[in-house]
Amino acid sequence: MREDMLSSVLSELNGTSADIEASAVISTDGLMIAAMLPQNMDEDRVGAMSAAMLSLGDRTAGELGRGDLEQVLIKGDNGFVLMTHAGEDAVVTVMAKPRAKLGLIFLDVKRAADNITKLL
Amino acid sequence: MREDMLSSVLSELNGTSADIEASAVISTDGLMIAAMLPQNMDEDRVGAMSAAMLSLGDRTAGELGRGDLEQVLIKGDNGFVLMTHAGEDAVVTVMAKPRAKLGLIFLDVKRAADNITKLL
Repeated sequence: MREDMLSSVLSELNGTSADIEASAVISTDGLMIAAMLPQNMDEDRVGAMSAAMLSLGDRTAGELGRGDLEQVLIKGDNGFVLMTHAGEDAVVTVMAKPRAKLGLIFLDVKRAADNITKLL
Repeated sequence: MREDMLSSVLSELNGTSADIEASAVISTDGLMIAAMLPQNMDEDRVGAMSAAMLSLGDRTAGELGRGDLEQVLIKGDNGFVLMTHAGEDAVVTVMAKPRAKLGLIFLDVKRAADNITKLL
């Protein structure tokens, strides 16, 4: 049941914008909790890279006096990866197209992360 | 001379906004090229964390189909770290306050990175 509710939050998130290509909820140790990924995207890979980026992001934020980590954004010439904490134990990872409107995506992902935090 | 010109680009960058607290140019292997950091911020630490984030960011962008890495943004509850490639061999790292206007900082950092690329 809870899994269905998480999937439904992700499904809604992917539906808010045609620029969002994929989303997932991942435990902070890199295990998949729920995912809405295209078939060609490997769950384990998304989980592993998200956990690694967050762990290093946490450390970087701390070492450089930026406080507790809230988000990591990666911009490539072929699109974005945005990772946002959902409570203490999980992360929402979203992949978006290169021309995505970032402000809108930040908002939508924050809303989804708040909903997911309540479900976990 | 070139060092002075790099410092002057960073000095100008820090001056564009009261929200920018520090900036540095770092080689992709983590060595400091030029820096305008507050006294309490350690050059080696900034260099090391920037190089580590970029290296993992490169890999994440590749593994998750986002193409070549352009930027990494870290948001903590006490501010931002923004890393932007300046050519193939260097990175501009900027630290900004929590309420910084991100859109403006993206623009200013991009302009500085373009100028730095020409100097390297």
